[in-house]
Amino acid sequence: MKKNKQKGNGILLWNRAKKIIPGGSQLLSKRSEMFLPGAWPSYYAKAKGITVWDLDGKKYLDFSTMGVGACILGFADPDVNRAVHKAINAGSMTTLNCPEEVELAKLLLSLHPWAHMARFARTGGEAMAVAVRIARAHTRKDAIAFCGYHGWHDWYLSANLASDKSLDGHLLPGLKPKGVPRALRGTTIPFSYNRIEELRRIAAKRKDIGVIVVETMRHQEPEKRFLHQVAAVAKRIGAVLIFDEISIGWRLVSGGAHLLYGVHPDIAVFAKAMSNGFPCAAIIGKKSIMESAQETFITSTYWTDRVGPVAALATIRKLKQKRVPFHLKRIGRLISDGWRELAKKHRLNLSVLGPPALATFTLNYGNESQALRTLFTQEMLARGYLAGPSVYVSYAHTAQAVKKYLKAVDDVFAILAKAVREKAVRRYLKGPVAHSGFKRLT
Amino acid sequence: MKKNKQKGNGILLWNRAKKIIPGGSQLLSKRSEMFLPGAWPSYYAKAKGITVWDLDGKKYLDFSTMGVGACILGFADPDVNRAVHKAINAGSMTTLNCPEEVELAKLLLSLHPWAHMARFARTGGEAMAVAVRIARAHTRKDAIAFCGYHGWHDWYLSANLASDKSLDGHLLPGLKPKGVPRALRGTTIPFSYNRIEELRRIAAKRKDIGVIVVETMRHQEPEKRFLHQVAAVAKRIGAVLIFDEISIGWRLVSGGAHLLYGVHPDIAVFAKAMSNGFPCAAIIGKKSIMESAQETFITSTYWTDRVGPVAALATIRKLKQKRVPFHLKRIGRLISDGWRELAKKHRLNLSVLGPPALATFTLNYGNESQALRTLFTQEMLARGYLAGPSVYVSYAHTAQAVKKYLKAVDDVFAILAKAVREKAVRRYLKGPVAHSGFKRLT
Repeated sequence: MKKNKQKGNGILLWNRAKKIIPGGSQLLSKRSEMFLPGAWPSYYAKAKGITVWDLDGKKYLDFSTMGVGACILGFADPDVNRAVHKAINAGSMTTLNCPEEVELAKLLLSLHPWAHMARFARTGGEAMAVAVRIARAHTRKDAIAFCGYHGWHDWYLSANLASDKSLDGHLLPGLKPKGVPRALRGTTIPFSYNRIEELRRIAAKRKDIGVIVVETMRHQEPEKRFLHQVAAVAKRIGAVLIFDEISIGWRLVSGGAHLLYGVHPDIAVFAKAMSNGFPCAAIIGKKSIMESAQETFITSTYWTDRVGPVAALATIRKLKQKRVPFHLKRIGRLISDGWRELAKKHRLNLSVLGPPALATFTLNYGNESQALRTLFTQEMLARGYLAGPSVYVSYAHTAQAVKKYLKAVDDVFAILAKAVREKAVRRYLKGPVAHSGFKRLT
Repeated sequence: MKKNKQKGNGILLWNRAKKIIPGGSQLLSKRSEMFLPGAWPSYYAKAKGITVWDLDGKKYLDFSTMGVGACILGFADPDVNRAVHKAINAGSMTTLNCPEEVELAKLLLSLHPWAHMARFARTGGEAMAVAVRIARAHTRKDAIAFCGYHGWHDWYLSANLASDKSLDGHLLPGLKPKGVPRALRGTTIPFSYNRIEELRRIAAKRKDIGVIVVETMRHQEPEKRFLHQVAAVAKRIGAVLIFDEISIGWRLVSGGAHLLYGVHPDIAVFAKAMSNGFPCAAIIGKKSIMESAQETFITSTYWTDRVGPVAALATIRKLKQKRVPFHLKRIGRLISDGWRELAKKHRLNLSVLGPPALATFTLNYGNESQALRTLFTQEMLARGYLAGPSVYVSYAHTAQAVKKYLKAVDDVFAILAKAVREKAVRRYLKGPVAHSGFKRLT
């Protein structure tokens, strides 16, 4: 690739990509505009642990999303990779099935004793669609009450057919439901996390609710008994309760976060983190409900590849063996405490959201908050860090790396504080403010 | 694994799997009951070229589906595997994007000059759902006219909400739409392949058709100008035309089968075969239409993994370099001609369907046809072959292997003919007749 003095090769490739890939990337959260428009390295050549090399050979430490939450053990984990290499040498796809998927089913069920059967997919969004299909087939009622973020599929986006604001507050504002059949209008009804009265109101009004879908948790802890109350509503109205553990699963405990709260859904869905970046997703559930999968048609060739289950087995075993969730909490606390202290030192108005394993800060400066967070990313990048307001902590993050990172944060918070004092945040920015949600790219 | 004298370990594992995985496998076409109930090896330990070793170390040659059409170069192809190993060592998932997906987009677009933009997914079913979403977003009309098989998603199965027979004749009889929202009833309307008048009738009656979905071809060649006529209808009514190339793509030509017929859709979808068994799927299309992907929310973390595009690049390059479609045709003809000759020799009433690259025979014995085909599989298995009525020819199938295979077919056709003469097909079967479509497993 030709070296360009003005812009890195990653930026040039990103600009070319947007011309032949609508949106540039397959994932909103990997768009350069979500981090640092016009300056984000965009592409990688190599990665190991928390280190990433861009297309120009520049090296960065990842204190951001670690593969949007996928790489819980670190990039190119040696143990997971060893298992995957072996599976590939032995053939990763044949006309017969791979025995590892049965082994993986057993492992997931042993970690979640309330569940009796498992199905697999290869992406989180489609795994949620599988779960919803099974649930609807079971109750034969089509309407869904949900809170949280659950992907791109029709069942979820149809909530926005009723009003373009329905999904606001569910992680990504402004998700457009264009192309979702209008016949689905009114089939999916949102309620707010920790607001059990909203769900109760929906359940009282709508007798056709057959499915309740909840992200077990994200940045907010469930208020005392919220999840139990949701489960009670589900039981009372005969709805199938689905916990979406895609983002939070495996980070707090070796399995679904619901294990911490002693509340069991009818179905739980896993994807990110379970296989350290190799595509794999799982739907586990109670026998009577999962058996409904036999009454409907849910099938895909690539769901039978061997890499997914092999990577998942190696990842989950290592998670357990190395007590990874404990490590994530410890490191996440170092990061969160560091942010708090440094914000105090520089008199920045910053709030820290939990859980530590998915540490996040917000800069409370109203209209300027997003510009400030862009400035944070810009200045951290200049210091060799991929960094934003969220850190998906991984097993590869060490206390030593955090110490170095916090030194850089110290410098950068000083700049942020100066920019705030001078009321000149945008003057410090070398490019546009980062996007904060779903937007058309040009 | 403990050795069992009565039954192989694969059969035992399959029986256990059905207790914890509804349907036993993630794919209908990998259920043991679809081949040889109670006796199919079910699982593999290792595979290379066309050779598969089961859990007991027994060796078979695959003259059946080669990973349900996925492994077009053969199992564990050395060139594709080399590229994938390298990608895994360098990190298969990070917070940044992999440059190979842009390279893959370029390669696909250069092979299909009518297309200007590409998106990627990881399974065929979800890629079709992406294509349908983009098409609906573009025309803002929700109704779909289709022919052929297109997977498990709501948009497709909703055709069966109108009548349980709607999808019969579209590859898999009896697909149950349980769990598909009833609000979708009437949104998807089937027409028959090569029956342009059926599509014209639908187009005349239904002004809300915004999408036409066609499997470019499967076993039937398109009749003279059928695809052109479909394209003309789409153009006339302003519908987006989607060619589903998942099963046929890459087998007849290095790209979509539509390239052979000089007719261009608005969108084409690829999955099987494009990455030799590693999960990858592509949606390519015209710029004005693909840009509509920016008006709706289509995103998934695992769509950004590096293994898929790297495997696809290596596979497609080898397909082109080695003129694989030419090889498939030559070998497929040897197989088809062999079947015909041997059927004649043994006076079996057998028809051969094309194309040679996806050679298929039917045994024309009414109610006994399925029992006879089960007997074929039983006897071929005893001779060391995974075999059924379809061969997805691969680059790893040699003329020499076909010669050996046809010798076994000769022996087995003799048994079939004897069973027919004695009107005692079922007496020759050691187990139940294979399933031929979608059925609940017990």
